[in-house]
Amino acid sequence: MLQVSIIGCGNLAHNLLRAFTFSREIQLVQLFCRNKSDAQQYNGIQIIDTYQKLKEVDLLIIAVSDNNIELVSKQIQLKNTLIVHCSGSISMEVIQQKHRGVFYPLQTFSKKIPLTFKDFPIFIEAKNSQGFETLNTVAKAISNNVQKMNSEQRKTLHLSAVFVNNFVNHLYVIGQQITKEKGLDFSLLFPLINETAYKLRHGSPQETQTGPAIRNDQTSIKKQEALLNNSVQKKLYQLFTESIKNNNESKKL
Amino acid sequence: MLQVSIIGCGNLAHNLLRAFTFSREIQLVQLFCRNKSDAQQYNGIQIIDTYQKLKEVDLLIIAVSDNNIELVSKQIQLKNTLIVHCSGSISMEVIQQKHRGVFYPLQTFSKKIPLTFKDFPIFIEAKNSQGFETLNTVAKAISNNVQKMNSEQRKTLHLSAVFVNNFVNHLYVIGQQITKEKGLDFSLLFPLINETAYKLRHGSPQETQTGPAIRNDQTSIKKQEALLNNSVQKKLYQLFTESIKNNNESKKL
Repeated sequence: MLQVSIIGCGNLAHNLLRAFTFSREIQLVQLFCRNKSDAQQYNGIQIIDTYQKLKEVDLLIIAVSDNNIELVSKQIQLKNTLIVHCSGSISMEVIQQKHRGVFYPLQTFSKKIPLTFKDFPIFIEAKNSQGFETLNTVAKAISNNVQKMNSEQRKTLHLSAVFVNNFVNHLYVIGQQITKEKGLDFSLLFPLINETAYKLRHGSPQETQTGPAIRNDQTSIKKQEALLNNSVQKKLYQLFTESIKNNNESKKL
Repeated sequence: MLQVSIIGCGNLAHNLLRAFTFSREIQLVQLFCRNKSDAQQYNGIQIIDTYQKLKEVDLLIIAVSDNNIELVSKQIQLKNTLIVHCSGSISMEVIQQKHRGVFYPLQTFSKKIPLTFKDFPIFIEAKNSQGFETLNTVAKAISNNVQKMNSEQRKTLHLSAVFVNNFVNHLYVIGQQITKEKGLDFSLLFPLINETAYKLRHGSPQETQTGPAIRNDQTSIKKQEALLNNSVQKKLYQLFTESIKNNNESKKL
């Protein structure tokens, strides 16, 4: 049984705790969390709020926001524990300790929706082979899809994730604003939204692109632009139209 | 039993034919389709390719691209048949005949993926109450979610659909380009893409927005921008970042 501790009490830490709780191969030892009310629901784990109390374990997971990883790592005094962060865009080298690595689950987490880790990939990286083995064992205890990935590849994947997750979600925000302004229910669009995502499994998004931009239907484009009052929304509409047309033309060459 | 004919042999016509074939309340009469190989798979329906052959039925559905609806309508000589188009952005009034209406299924269709109409909404509009009743009966024969909607509301819904379907799909295209350039498999992102869509059912997209832009994390933003070589992708990245930040600031006020 491998001993694991976690630093953080955000969405990711929450989901990791839940996953490890259900794994027979992992023993959760400590949770560093300054917000006691967030932490109290986990039985059998020691809640701490100072770095000095951290014990040596097999793996310590830093599950904090990107900007705080280096800062947190500098506070840790452990010598033998493998220490990893969970960020897509941060290099493994920001971790100060010799035994370092990265544990990057490619998913969006929230406290409300419990996720099953085995359904999505976890990418791992470690400074040495012993660390890699530990990380591999821990990741496989909760996921069927564990892959080795270096910091460069991880950055690329994360950049792609910014487009298909962060930016897509912002388009949902705009879609909701447009319907709300006219008193329409945004949930009417949920089946369309799901199908748009689901379709990817049946063909490349390039092939299935639809809409006025790909048809270069200037009449519809002008009419739709005119419906938008918000200047940033209008700029986004224009830039998407340009980008979709460009892509289509370069495909034809 | 209501008699229905269809003009068109694209993705939507294909999916409508399939849905009506399974309905006991609908008798399919004619399919106007100039591409014989597309049409031959439907038994018991007459395939025609000239407008003069169209027979009077209860409902004739024009399932062609937005730009061709008016043109097609002008070719039709029927007097008693209710004639509808299926477009989100085109007014009912482009149909030349007295008995006119709109039958707008809010979904994205492809020939490869058979869809169940009962899972998504169909919005209907008709010039007179008799036409509305016919349309309502036909729509309810294939869907559990039929709603009355006027042309103005439909345009709003369609504009929102352009953002959450056309533009979202284009972000998938970009996501795929980014991974492909570095030899990474885009399907690694499918679980994240699905979860991003699924999350909407548990909270507004505004609440669940994540990423460097909403945290105003300038270090990550600059680093990610620098990874993009394509100038339109870079412009989209900047505009999304600005739009997400603006939204967040106006939320705080």
